[in-house]
Amino acid sequence: MTSFDEATAVTPLGDGRYHVEPDARFAIVAPGGTATAAVNGGALLATVLRAVLDSSAHPHPVATSAHFLRVPKLAPAEVEVTWLKHGRTASTARATLVQDGQPVLDTTVTTGTVSEDAAGSELLSWTGPRPAFPAMEDCVDLGKWPGTMAADGTAGYAAQVEVLLDPGGTGWRDGAPSGVPEMRGYFRLREDRDPDAYLLAMAVDGLPPVVFGLGATGWAPTVELTWHMRAVPVPGPLQVAARCRHVSGGWFDEEAEVWDASGRLVAQSRQLARVGRGPVRVAADGSEKASSVVGR
Amino acid sequence: MTSFDEATAVTPLGDGRYHVEPDARFAIVAPGGTATAAVNGGALLATVLRAVLDSSAHPHPVATSAHFLRVPKLAPAEVEVTWLKHGRTASTARATLVQDGQPVLDTTVTTGTVSEDAAGSELLSWTGPRPAFPAMEDCVDLGKWPGTMAADGTAGYAAQVEVLLDPGGTGWRDGAPSGVPEMRGYFRLREDRDPDAYLLAMAVDGLPPVVFGLGATGWAPTVELTWHMRAVPVPGPLQVAARCRHVSGGWFDEEAEVWDASGRLVAQSRQLARVGRGPVRVAADGSEKASSVVGR
Repeated sequence: MTSFDEATAVTPLGDGRYHVEPDARFAIVAPGGTATAAVNGGALLATVLRAVLDSSAHPHPVATSAHFLRVPKLAPAEVEVTWLKHGRTASTARATLVQDGQPVLDTTVTTGTVSEDAAGSELLSWTGPRPAFPAMEDCVDLGKWPGTMAADGTAGYAAQVEVLLDPGGTGWRDGAPSGVPEMRGYFRLREDRDPDAYLLAMAVDGLPPVVFGLGATGWAPTVELTWHMRAVPVPGPLQVAARCRHVSGGWFDEEAEVWDASGRLVAQSRQLARVGRGPVRVAADGSEKASSVVGR
Repeated sequence: MTSFDEATAVTPLGDGRYHVEPDARFAIVAPGGTATAAVNGGALLATVLRAVLDSSAHPHPVATSAHFLRVPKLAPAEVEVTWLKHGRTASTARATLVQDGQPVLDTTVTTGTVSEDAAGSELLSWTGPRPAFPAMEDCVDLGKWPGTMAADGTAGYAAQVEVLLDPGGTGWRDGAPSGVPEMRGYFRLREDRDPDAYLLAMAVDGLPPVVFGLGATGWAPTVELTWHMRAVPVPGPLQVAARCRHVSGGWFDEEAEVWDASGRLVAQSRQLARVGRGPVRVAADGSEKASSVVGR
């Protein structure tokens, strides 16, 4: 059993309730500094999906909508699953992660069956062009970045995942953002574990926020994220391409595609997030402005 | 008061409950033929948003996730609104449209404030390139297409909206689909009414399904749709550009951008839907296959 599987495990309590223990190995540093440990949202989403799939008649989370309400703490929690519809092709459940009696992560999940092998299917099959990914050996390894260490000094989320970025989009690391809100790269666990729906739930938000490319490199909390599972991934590293379409009023969107090692589109996501507190802001005309606090 | 405003009105019943009367003027023909009248999903979504915004401290539905569970009937219904969080920057509610005691449309809505005037904002502002739209006079008017007439013969949804399509994407009307799952065009009410959040909720799914471009021209029910309001639209027709990234296993995604008459990106959506029953199917290599039933 891998760290990821242990950290996202759920224990049934009956009546659609599940006990979960957010795991320090997937901790991140919450706003407020190192004194507050939070938990990576993707790992929590995977946890919630485990609870949903535990009682689902269909095998795959084809559509997951998640609204992130409060900062998840490194403390015991419960997932409450309520089925709204059991259908032949699709079923839908609400699932909420609750801590201290308050909803922290509220999701609606529609389950169904996605293609295991499009080539052999009798159904209509079509895919848009695949983004270009650089060779893995040409990418920049993000390493174990300090923003994701747990409060007690143990390595958190960044020690669990390997993120290799297209070097064209990493200028923000040296204070020279590209001016383009895009990220592209490879994502996998450092442990040897094949991708599946749960890992996809983490990969769809696995790269640094796209607005880092505009110099806004601070905490950029996800407010809402919806992702679709489109195919069962083959073993191997995942390729993630993320872009933004619009930033204003303190909000930005980020849409990501995840392609598997065989070159299939396996997941899509879009999120709405708050622009982080960054050292540099870029105006519409490309000029830089003084820094200010934009976070919520 | 316009037909649209009348058809999407809500009457408070107290305790977060609202009475609604789905309106024959926004009826569509449900699967099963003309004997069954359903209601346009966008009009229902606008109705649900009215109930949410009635008790929201924030003015705009910045993120709306909707799972379509059952075919909405032309019969009285209730919307139940439950607030999960009231925040300074954003608040989140669940809102469910219920008919005959069963959830028909389940949504989660995060409200906040979007930019009214990006140019005057001190915040980071950035927008990706705008898709090219043909001039309105060069577009193909979809007219009052028969698939949206109500059961009793009165004109339904199609009589309320004007859809003008880029002629490059309308070959499916003559049995000669372009082979590309894209749609682009203009969307407005036939009545004189300025766009707002409620009209955007209808516009984000206002064009024919993108898979019509692959020859799958049947009933293509939306299973999940999430849309983000990005700015307050100015008066004038809306421009909608929709595309697909992947079709397999009977599922397709459709992502739409809505731009206002001043050229601002005002809304984004992505939906997961079922491939409709169409007369022609196109294989990955572009060849045509015999027809088959793919609907749910």
